[in-house]
This record gives sequence, structure tokens and C-alpha cells, in this order.
Amino acid sequence: MKIHKFQPQIYYYTFGPNEPALTIHSGDIVVTTTRDARGFDEKLEPIPEIQKQRSDITSLRESNPLVGPIYVEEAKPGDTLAVTIQKIKLNRNYAWSRHQSHFGGLTGEGSGKTLFLNEPLPEKSFDWRLDLERNVGILELENSKLKQIRIPLHPFLGSIGIAPGFGRIEPSITPGEYGGNMDCVETKEGTTIYFPVWVVGAYLSFGDVHAAQGDGEICGVALETTAEVTIQVDIVHGRQLEWPHMQDDKYIMTTGSGRPLMDCVRLAYVELIKWLVDEYGFDKWEAYQVVSQIGTMRIGNVVDPNYTVVAKFPREYLPD
Amino acid sequence: MKIHKFQPQIYYYTFGPNEPALTIHSGDIVVTTTRDARGFDEKLEPIPEIQKQRSDITSLRESNPLVGPIYVEEAKPGDTLAVTIQKIKLNRNYAWSRHQSHFGGLTGEGSGKTLFLNEPLPEKSFDWRLDLERNVGILELENSKLKQIRIPLHPFLGSIGIAPGFGRIEPSITPGEYGGNMDCVETKEGTTIYFPVWVVGAYLSFGDVHAAQGDGEICGVALETTAEVTIQVDIVHGRQLEWPHMQDDKYIMTTGSGRPLMDCVRLAYVELIKWLVDEYGFDKWEAYQVVSQIGTMRIGNVVDPNYTVVAKFPREYLPD
Amino acid sequence: MKIHKFQPQIYYYTFGPNEPALTIHSGDIVVTTTRDARGFDEKLEPIPEIQKQRSDITSLRESNPLVGPIYVEEAKPGDTLAVTIQKIKLNRNYAWSRHQSHFGGLTGEGSGKTLFLNEPLPEKSFDWRLDLERNVGILELENSKLKQIRIPLHPFLGSIGIAPGFGRIEPSITPGEYGGNMDCVETKEGTTIYFPVWVVGAYLSFGDVHAAQGDGEICGVALETTAEVTIQVDIVHGRQLEWPHMQDDKYIMTTGSGRPLMDCVRLAYVELIKWLVDEYGFDKWEAYQVVSQIGTMRIGNVVDPNYTVVAKFPREYLPD
Amino acid sequence: MKIHKFQPQIYYYTFGPNEPALTIHSGDIVVTTTRDARGFDEKLEPIPEIQKQRSDITSLRESNPLVGPIYVEEAKPGDTLAVTIQKIKLNRNYAWSRHQSHFGGLTGEGSGKTLFLNEPLPEKSFDWRLDLERNVGILELENSKLKQIRIPLHPFLGSIGIAPGFGRIEPSITPGEYGGNMDCVETKEGTTIYFPVWVVGAYLSFGDVHAAQGDGEICGVALETTAEVTIQVDIVHGRQLEWPHMQDDKYIMTTGSGRPLMDCVRLAYVELIKWLVDEYGFDKWEAYQVVSQIGTMRIGNVVDPNYTVVAKFPREYLPD
Repeated sequence: MKIHKFQPQIYYYTFGPNEPALTIHSGDIVVTTTRDARGFDEKLEPIPEIQKQRSDITSLRESNPLVGPIYVEEAKPGDTLAVTIQKIKLNRNYAWSRHQSHFGGLTGEGSGKTLFLNEPLPEKSFDWRLDLERNVGILELENSKLKQIRIPLHPFLGSIGIAPGFGRIEPSITPGEYGGNMDCVETKEGTTIYFPVWVVGAYLSFGDVHAAQGDGEICGVALETTAEVTIQVDIVHGRQLEWPHMQDDKYIMTTGSGRPLMDCVRLAYVELIKWLVDEYGFDKWEAYQVVSQIGTMRIGNVVDPNYTVVAKFPREYLPD
Repeated sequence: MKIHKFQPQIYYYTFGPNEPALTIHSGDIVVTTTRDARGFDEKLEPIPEIQKQRSDITSLRESNPLVGPIYVEEAKPGDTLAVTIQKIKLNRNYAWSRHQSHFGGLTGEGSGKTLFLNEPLPEKSFDWRLDLERNVGILELENSKLKQIRIPLHPFLGSIGIAPGFGRIEPSITPGEYGGNMDCVETKEGTTIYFPVWVVGAYLSFGDVHAAQGDGEICGVALETTAEVTIQVDIVHGRQLEWPHMQDDKYIMTTGSGRPLMDCVRLAYVELIKWLVDEYGFDKWEAYQVVSQIGTMRIGNVVDPNYTVVAKFPREYLPD
Repeated sequence: MKIHKFQPQIYYYTFGPNEPALTIHSGDIVVTTTRDARGFDEKLEPIPEIQKQRSDITSLRESNPLVGPIYVEEAKPGDTLAVTIQKIKLNRNYAWSRHQSHFGGLTGEGSGKTLFLNEPLPEKSFDWRLDLERNVGILELENSKLKQIRIPLHPFLGSIGIAPGFGRIEPSITPGEYGGNMDCVETKEGTTIYFPVWVVGAYLSFGDVHAAQGDGEICGVALETTAEVTIQVDIVHGRQLEWPHMQDDKYIMTTGSGRPLMDCVRLAYVELIKWLVDEYGFDKWEAYQVVSQIGTMRIGNVVDPNYTVVAKFPREYLPD
Repeated sequence: MKIHKFQPQIYYYTFGPNEPALTIHSGDIVVTTTRDARGFDEKLEPIPEIQKQRSDITSLRESNPLVGPIYVEEAKPGDTLAVTIQKIKLNRNYAWSRHQSHFGGLTGEGSGKTLFLNEPLPEKSFDWRLDLERNVGILELENSKLKQIRIPLHPFLGSIGIAPGFGRIEPSITPGEYGGNMDCVETKEGTTIYFPVWVVGAYLSFGDVHAAQGDGEICGVALETTAEVTIQVDIVHGRQLEWPHMQDDKYIMTTGSGRPLMDCVRLAYVELIKWLVDEYGFDKWEAYQVVSQIGTMRIGNVVDPNYTVVAKFPREYLPD
């Protein structure tokens, strides 16, 4: 087991088999720092142009720059890549947020999504102060009766994923069966994410740290900031998933990403029942019954090109 | 303030201005017992034929029999009816559940909803024992590695609602802006539900107690049982809502019921932002930002003719 | 066979087992006149208050007044009611249309449907002149480069339906397995509609004549007008449908009404394949193939509380 | 103006700025032959391995091989690429079709889309004979009362598109604002398609000829075959679209691709109204009214990762 202190030299805006930035072995630990969704680092410095993934042909959609990809020597198609988030240490006392005219769950959306005849929303930016000692985010409210709001921070990786079965996910904003920009609060410290491996080396990438976020990321933007992130990567051979699974101290979890939202629910729950049957010895129909009574779900996002739902089953009800 | 011990003599299968079973005043308390979703009482006795709401013309869809309607003397259109659930005391050591071929979130549905060419699901019933002393539900698993599952009970009213603005909701299974069969876990002890009043007298009805249920009521059926229910009813004059609001010790909440699921999310969040603006002095765009960062939601059901989403905002962030 | 010249004395705003306005026998013909969606007749006279269906309790949603219900003596549950539209003779040289702030397929909708944070649309009314001799509708355009538009008329019944299996459809604006406000251009002269009968007497009602309408009735309102309508009613015993079927000289057709739109597509196509199997001797999978290659569909409406899709199969490919 | 007789040497499975196979000028004509959706040519020969686009890293999803990309010298971002389909000459007397377990509009779908607990559909293949002289497709029915079905052919390009604004569309099966696998019957002889250009050179690709197809391509597969295709390419400078537009002798048309289906309707109609305002001098609200009364739509597909709707406005109502 080796610990890699990794300082990214280039940032990708896609998930896929890009030139590896780091090669590791199963069991290794990686410590690195991420940039925020617009590419600023912990000192609010932008990404130097030379460090941006760039093609000479297409324009660059500079959203959600990713650290990686990390090439895992032992990973091959049919395996499962287990990524444990050991630490997300916020390293900046500032997060930005905003809402946009054509992005978000309560308005018409830009190219390729829903649209209306109504006038678009006015845009607005918000600056959150992060008090890292007290673990709170603070927003001054200018036009409300309440003058300040202080909320607890619960940092998580907005984006973490691997190379898809075919090509690249361009731009990185779309989540899917490769994980990616799921924007779900569960990809936090202490969670292990299990990805189905489709490509030799797996090509793990991540970034887009959110200091806090409500369910669904309704306005499309969370408390966007930076962190020092520590992950451990393991390979599980011979276990074939169809969608990312997760596990923390309380739950086993499945994810479903797509549109419409109900299909995310279906994908996540069918996968959860399948998991209970395949690994925990449940009868299919008894799993369906039990999941219906004690399963819960959280909606990661309802704003990205695919939405994400996380279905959860409490570990205390699993057989030993 | 008067306490009404109420023993229903007739059960309705619709929400609407049916012949009142009880007339009360604002501030009164009602104590009554409900029947389960198929009409069985705490002794597993069915509803006598003579006690069923019946028309001589249409057939009867005997699902979710309701207690009430309760006519509230002071309620008039434009008011808000505040119903506080003081107590839901389970009174039977048995709950049934099942899944059906054409009902539920993970299969094709019966008349009026989604359908596929696939063969329908086999049906199956489940008997849950309720240990009321320990507050747990117990299911023997016949075909799984795990032989028994014990889950905590958290009883709530699957159905509670008032007369809609026009006519009746027939059958009672469809939730909407009148509340109704929302199947959301928040209509539990300690919650106050605020209904917009459209009809003089309001015509409050409720029933369909669930001893426990997972998010979304995925298979379409919870732990169906009976209870002694105590509610207090108050009128708030001059406050006009568009959808039921709720409040417990931790949250203010809004509901949105419809299809597709994403539209429930939109309805509930737009209403929540409106509430923050109208009653708590938030600027619209600052409310949008704050809700996006600390709002949560729970999915009541994804199985009824309308789905239900509950959007929640923590009371600790409200101005005094 | 008897011809009933029928002059309505009362107008209902619901589909259901209301007091019959006319009783007929299978095979009879009914000639009557309809009022437009706001209740105006061919002389632009409103419905006298005394002729409106009214309850002393709930308010009246005066949209889409219906002629009927017509009680059909021989109709009983399990039968099919065949209604042939023999004639829709427009009898007014005027149709109105409009778009509304919270209604229509390209904006947020009122209670129970989708909502956004955007400002609502400004409302606007449009007056169409109907040249009945030339069969064209004429609209003067006030703010466009084009000063006048003339479109061919193709009158049809926006609403035609029977009593549902349970209760009433209140208000009448929601289409479903009972037909109702499908707003599909196929309910025109020459079409026979087959309704599944759930209630003794069937209780046929209709109205809401549209002189013309585009697919989906996108803005929510067509060329709203009045007509003299002639229908013939027959009972087909022992043929049980789940959704309304239709037939004209070129197509057999099925309807699916619901939300989301994709579920209407599924309902209509599964029903169409079932029809080909049950009545025309097709193998299920060969019907699936053939329908996929020569089936077409039209979207009736994407604006009512349920949307409607019509799936069509050309009669020339049916076996004799 | 130059005519390029073009024999593809390599087939791509993505839309994007791949190595150009041919470079042309605005006004040029290209004559070429396409392969069917599984890569077979007019002699039923498969694509030689060496002619497949291949990366040494990711596996190959060999569906819908494309001819091209064609680099258009004058095309630059902000322009519109006008592609006129002059000829689609079927060159094979055979088309295949099939339905699959996890693909199609009436069943659960594979990775990334909807799923259910039901057993999957059995798969089945169908062989259609194409009588090119009589322009009919012929299918022998083995298990139906009808023994043979003969349908008229109406060949069109299932896939035609350009490089998207960012990266590549991998695999090519997903349609979008770049066109692509829209599977709409309107991309036929005589239609001109207008694409928004995002990348210098535009990178036009096409293929996937369908000899016939019903609306929605319900089972997911049409009459898959090959053709000799003749197109003419022109650049329109200074006209910026957001979605592909089309035009034939009768209609101007817009496309919307996405999920859910209703959002395709919204995208296509908002774009159509915008077109009427921007290019034909309509007032926005008068365009909304007129489109609502004489607009029609056809559903291209309800089976691909994005669905496609085409909204149509009759050219006879446009000002000169």
C-alpha cells in the first residue's frame, strides 16, 4: 500500500480514458487537492491555460474541472472499483453559488432540455463565507428580513466517476452508470463507492467539491469550493455491477441517473433489490417487500442533463 | 374547546362534501378510530355493508375507507384549516402488505397509467406482526437467507384531506391540492397540516393508517393497519394557500402531488419559496438560494394516480 | 331505430351518472346542438343560470358544458358503446381562442400541475371568423408581418365520454379511460368511438366543438365554437375494452390519456397491439413488429390534466 | 459546384470532429453509399475490421456506423449548414428488424434508462424483403391469421448530424441539438436540414437508412437497410440556430430531442415559434396562437437515449 501525494498538472473536463495523470495499484491511497466548479483553487487562482485539457478543434466547456484520471493497474472490465473517501478537508474560507436563467430545476433549461415561452429568470450570484473552525457556511442576506444565515457544512464530491464503456462523457456535467456529476450528498467522508469497471485501468477522476447542498441542488449550484481529498482505491475482482453502488456506516446504497426523475427511482430501486438478492440471499419478492417498507431515497440532483436518485437500505437489516 | 369521541357509522371512499358525520367548531378535538385500507377494523372485522358509502348507480371501489367528513362550522373558502395530529395510537397487532401485478412503482400500472408489453408481476401477500410494546413490526421471511426482519414503527395517516374546490375526489386514492392519499410519512403525530379551504365547512376526512413505510411506498402498499387517532382542528382566517403546508417541531413543509414526479418537486419547491417570501420576509431570489442549500425533500408515494413530494425547510433558519 | 331531436335543458360539467337528459335504445340517432367551452350558444347567448348543473355546496367550474347524459337502455358493464359521429355541422360564424398565464403546454400550469419561478405569460384573446361556406377560419393578425391567416376547418368534438367506473369526473376537463376531454382531432365526422361500459345506461355526454386545432392544442385553446351534432349509438355486447377505441374509413385507433406524455404513448400502443391480437388474429410479437413499422400516432392534447395520444393502424393491412 | 463520388474507407460510430473522410466546399454535392445499422453493405458484407473507427482503449459499440465526417471548408461557428437530401436510392432487396429485451418504447431499457421488476421481453428478429421496383416491403407472418404484409417504402436517413459544441457524441445513437440519430421520417428525399455550426468545418456524418418506419420507432428498430445517398451542402452565414431546422415542399420544421417526451415537444415548439418571429415577422403571441391551430408534430423516436419530436408549420401560411 502506497500513499501518493498528487499535485495535478492538467485538468480534464471529461470522464474517459484520457492520458493518465497518475498510475496506482489496488490498495493505494491518493491525497490531492481539487479546484472548484469554475476552476479556481484554494487561493482563488484560476487554472493556467496550459493546464487545461484542450483539443485544437472543439471549444472548451470549462465547467467542473476534474483531478485525474488515475489509472489503476489491476482494474479490468468486469471488476469493481471500490473508492473509499477517507477525507475531504475544506481548504478555503469561501464558496460561491448562483442561479442562472436557463439552468436549474424550477425554470426552463438550455440546449437539449426543457423550454418555455416565459421570460427567463434574472441571474444572481451569492458569496458564502466558510468558517472552517465552526464548520458553518455564512450568507449575508441583503433583501430579506433575516439578515444572515448560518448553515452546517457537510462537504462532498459533486463529481466522481470512471471511464464509461464507450468513449468519453463530454462535457463532464452529465452523470450516469459511470458515476460522474451525480451531485449527491452521499459521496462524502466515510463512503465507499463501487464502480463497475469497463475499461482497463478504470480511469478514476473527481472534483467539484460542495461544502453544503440541499436535496436536488434545486437552483443548480451548491456551495462551490475546494478541498484536500484523500481516497483509497481497491479492486474487487469478479463482481459485476450495472450502476455505482455505495456504502457508509449506516446504509448500502444504489444510484440511478437519467431523465425523467421517475426513471432514476426505478433504476436505483431495481438495482437495490438486485443487490439484496445477489449478495445478501434475499428472495426477489421478499426483497421488494422489505425495501418498500424500510428503504429511503435521496434526490442528488434535478438539474444536470441526467438527474440522480440514491436508494438506501439500512445495513442493520442485512444478514451477517 | 370540546373533545368529540367519535365512532363512525358510515365510511366514505371519496373526499368531498358528503353528508357530514360530525360537526365541530374551530379549536375542537376529535378522537376516533380508523379502519385499514381494505376496511378491516382493530378486530379484523370488515365494514358492515350498511355502513359503506354507496350509490345505487356506480360500483364501489372499496379502497381506503375514510372517517368523516367532519364539518367545521367556521371554515369558509379563503381560510386555512389547521389540523394537528396529536396522537396515532396503533390498536392492532397485525398489518398486512402485498404487491400487485398492475400497481406499484416498479411495474406497469392499471387503467390510466403506464403499461408495457412485459408479463405482469406475480402477486404476493405479506403478514406483519406488530409488537406494540416494543414498537416494532416483524415479518417472517420464507425464502430468504435472513429468516426474520424487525423494523421500527412510525405510524402515520396515509390519507388526510378535505373537499376539493369542485365536486368529489373519486376514488379517494388520488392525492392533490386537497391533500388526500399523499402516503407521506410526515402526516404523523406532532405534525400540523394546513389545508386551503374551498368549501364552506371544509369537510375533513382521514384514514389509511400505515404502521411503517419506506420512501415512495415503492410496492404500492405499506404496513396497513388501524389506530385510535386524536386530532385538533383550528381555522386560520385570511391566509390563502394553494397546496397543503405542514409543520412539525423541526420543519416547515410543502406538498406537491401530480405526475410526472419532477412536477411534484417543482410544485412543492415553488410553494415553499412562496411561503418563505409571503410569511417570513424572504426576498424571492434569496429564498431560492437558501432553499437550494438547506432544503430537503421526501418522496411520499410514486404509486398512486398522483405522486407526492414533500419539500422541507428547517425551522431553525426562520426569522423569529 | 328512432331519431331523437334533442334540445338540452340542463348542462353538466362532469362525466358521470347524472340525471339522464335523454333515454334512447341501441341503434337510435340523436340530433342536438352543443355550446362552446364557455357556455355560449350559436347566438352567443350564455347558459341561463337555471340550466347549469349546480350543487348547493361546491362552486361551479363552468368550463366545457356537456350535452347529456344520454342513458342507453341496453348498455351494461362489460359491453361496448359504439358512438358514430354522423355529422358535425358548424352553426356559428365565430370562434374564440386565447392563451392563459397558467395553462398550456409551453408554460407553468395551475393547481396540480407543473410550476416554475418564472413570471407567468401575459394573457391574450383571439377572435376567429368562420366562413362556413368556404370552410375556413380567418384570423386578423395585428402585430405580424402577415396581416391575415385563413385555415381550413375540420370540426370535431373536443369532449365525448361516458360515466367512469366510479363516481364522476369533476371537472369534465380531465380525459381518461372513459374518453372525455381528449381534444383529439379524430373525434370528427365519420369516426366511430368504442367506449368500455362500466355503468348501466353508459351515460354518454359530449360537447366542446372545435372548428380547428393543431396537434397537442399547444396553447390550451382551439377554435372554440358550436355545432349541430348528429350521432348514432349502438351497443356491442360481450366485447370488453380497457380504453376507448376508434375507427374511421382509414384507421383503427386506440387512445391513451395520462401524464407523463410517454405513458400515453405506452397505453395507446399496448392497447393497439392487444386489439390486433384479440380481434384480428395477430401474434403478439408480429403485431409489435408490424405496428412499429406502419403505426402512426397523433397527440390530441398536451395541456389538459391528462394528456391524450391516439395510436393508429391503417385498416388496409387488417385481414378481412 | 463539384460532385464528389465518395466511397468510405472508414466508418465512425460517433458524431464529432473525427479525422475528415472528405473535404468539400459550400455548394458541393456528395454521392455515397451507406451501411445498415449493424454495418452490412448492399451485398450483406460486414465492415472489414480495418475500416472500423477504433481506439486502443475503449471497446467498440458497433451500432449505426456513419459515413463521413465531411469537412466543409467554409463552415464556422455561428453559421448554419444546409444539407439537402437529393436522393436516397435503396440498393438492397433486404431489410432486417427485431425487438430486444431491454430496448424499445414498450419495455424496460438497458443501462441509463427505465427499468422494472418484470421479466424482460423475449427477443425476435424479422426479415423484410424489399421489392424496389414496386417500392414495397414484404414480411411473411408466421404465427398470425394474416400471412403476409406489404407496406409502402419511404426511405430516410435515421442518422444525420454534425459535430456538437463540445467533444464527441459517443456512441452515435443519442440525438440532440447536433441532429444525429433522430430516427424521424422527415430526413427523406427533398428535405433540407439546417444545422447550427459549432465547430470549424462542421463535420457532417450520416447513415442508418430506414426503408420504412412507424411513428416513434416503437420497437426500437425500423426496416434497416442500405442506400446510395446524394446530398448537397450549403453554408448560410450569419444565421444562428439552437436546434436543427428542416424544410420540405410543404413544411418548415423544428426538432427537439431529449427526455422526457414532453420536453421534446416544448423544445420543438418554442423553437418553431422563435423561427416564425425571427425570420417571418410574426409577433410572438400571434405565432403562439397560429401554431396552436395549424401546427402538427410527428414523433421521430421514443426509444433512443434521447427521444425526438418534429414540430411542423405549413409553408402555405408563411408570408412571402
